[in-house]
Amino acid sequence: MVKNRWVAVAEDRVLKPNDFPTAKSAQISAVNGGFCPFCQGNEAHTPHEITACRPPESAPDGPGWLVRAIPNKFSAFEPEGTLAEKKSGIYRATNGLGRHEVIIETPEHGVEFHELSAERIGLVLGMLKRRYNDLAADGRIKYIQIYKNQGLFAGASLKHTHSQIVGLPFVPAENEGLELYYNEKKSCLLCDIIKQEKEERTRLVHESDSFIALCPYASRFPYEVWIVPLAHQGHFGDLHEDKIMELASLLKDMASVIMNRLEMPSYNLIINTAPVNSGEAAPYHWYMELTPRMVVNAGVEIATGVFINPVSPELAAGILKEALSARK
Amino acid sequence: MVKNRWVAVAEDRVLKPNDFPTAKSAQISAVNGGFCPFCQGNEAHTPHEITACRPPESAPDGPGWLVRAIPNKFSAFEPEGTLAEKKSGIYRATNGLGRHEVIIETPEHGVEFHELSAERIGLVLGMLKRRYNDLAADGRIKYIQIYKNQGLFAGASLKHTHSQIVGLPFVPAENEGLELYYNEKKSCLLCDIIKQEKEERTRLVHESDSFIALCPYASRFPYEVWIVPLAHQGHFGDLHEDKIMELASLLKDMASVIMNRLEMPSYNLIINTAPVNSGEAAPYHWYMELTPRMVVNAGVEIATGVFINPVSPELAAGILKEALSARK
Repeated sequence: MVKNRWVAVAEDRVLKPNDFPTAKSAQISAVNGGFCPFCQGNEAHTPHEITACRPPESAPDGPGWLVRAIPNKFSAFEPEGTLAEKKSGIYRATNGLGRHEVIIETPEHGVEFHELSAERIGLVLGMLKRRYNDLAADGRIKYIQIYKNQGLFAGASLKHTHSQIVGLPFVPAENEGLELYYNEKKSCLLCDIIKQEKEERTRLVHESDSFIALCPYASRFPYEVWIVPLAHQGHFGDLHEDKIMELASLLKDMASVIMNRLEMPSYNLIINTAPVNSGEAAPYHWYMELTPRMVVNAGVEIATGVFINPVSPELAAGILKEALSARK
Repeated sequence: MVKNRWVAVAEDRVLKPNDFPTAKSAQISAVNGGFCPFCQGNEAHTPHEITACRPPESAPDGPGWLVRAIPNKFSAFEPEGTLAEKKSGIYRATNGLGRHEVIIETPEHGVEFHELSAERIGLVLGMLKRRYNDLAADGRIKYIQIYKNQGLFAGASLKHTHSQIVGLPFVPAENEGLELYYNEKKSCLLCDIIKQEKEERTRLVHESDSFIALCPYASRFPYEVWIVPLAHQGHFGDLHEDKIMELASLLKDMASVIMNRLEMPSYNLIINTAPVNSGEAAPYHWYMELTPRMVVNAGVEIATGVFINPVSPELAAGILKEALSARK
């Protein structure tokens, strides 16, 4: 109401204070290990797999897979039913219609995402693309968010590397700048950003044949990196099969540079894309955000929505570019 | 641009990766102590004080104070000049006009905010009110945000308990729900919330003569608590002197219950208030938010602005209410 925001309340279980990932005991248990449901051999402890990259002779929910997609056990969203609004006095609520899946990126515990080979990262991206297109086929879903939480300060609750994909029954406002710009200028904001960044070159980190990596103007997070396809394309699900390896290789490079140059920060990987089943995709241009979480969003960010960033994108781009060329 | 947000880039110093509060070495140094510029006796290591609660015979920037207001040394904002917009291709920037102060809440290191006596918390609130009104007298300031970061997961970078106050040259969009509601219904959203919550009583934690404490409908954070004045009042700076002790006592109670019942979580304390020097205050109703940070804002929150909260406000209100009555 006051904040004009949607909140998803998930209450499958009652959390005790020390069940929260920030609790000391939870931090210690995450570091020391303990039982991991995402490890190979523990498939019976997750919901049944939706699909997996596995040899044809291996059985679903058994070992042998390389990437595995499962429903999120603690989802805030239920895949059944239709969206229904409920009023209660001045408040509005809906049922939690939506789909929420987990992509386990490797059977091996302790290998971090950036340590996977480019080929294995390519398998993960291919799986994300297939899950995206599968969720997009559900007409009740209006927006699909792919995201990865790496490390405690990025909201990871399980150490074993994984991504998540959530299909929402509405389009969140967070990327509305793209549509506002398109309606005003009749051109794509991200295409115009690419053009300006290629001219100025002060925030550019790398260019490959089909993608550009840059530190965005007015970065919210220190060392924030965006990976943007050079050609205009609204939906991540339309990523061409023959571009996947190029993207995987650039993503591995950028994640490695962030982890190695910046002393292993927590980070999020986010794929922004066009809304699905709701109007034209023309204003949208999908792209990836890599957001190191070296600064905790504090009171001022929560209260005002204004981010305070102690590192300019121009400085960050210079440091990351140098680290990238040292890596090559 | 894409996010339709303002970002403040602060670059007074170049931060090395291990200067960030999330870095292991920074965490260890925060726990083990080391030099603290906010301690009594170290006044020479901060910028000159703006004002302080101190006995008349004691000298500014010397010991003897109870609450001390200083400019923020690492501010993203400069108090000099006028706001000027600069265009660079498709991007827009302004200079960092604004004012940013720190309120040191006690001379004693290691005493947490909720452990201060109600009288001492009253002194802090009185100081915040005076600093608010002083900043509001600067016509270039359009919004004043008061906030406190308690603990690592709430963005605190110094352990010694303190609040911050920032005067921004624009009105952030975060509380626009109040204005939208007022324009549509010609009544105050928070007054209507108070009315409904007093009838339903499921999210009510406590009522005093002039204030109500509740867990808001669609809470973004688990165990989020709002303290709202019952009478309609736009500006925090208009808080009556004779209500300060009542508010201090309720605030101490609520902060204590959150810290003691929930195993000492990090939290933010935020005061939302009407914009200053920019139109009528009628749609606004100031209130305090206490937001425990037991869950880290993860990729999905950053990407979509949709918060996932594992604890319903009704459950949270019941738990906090019980803890509050056990405390009395």
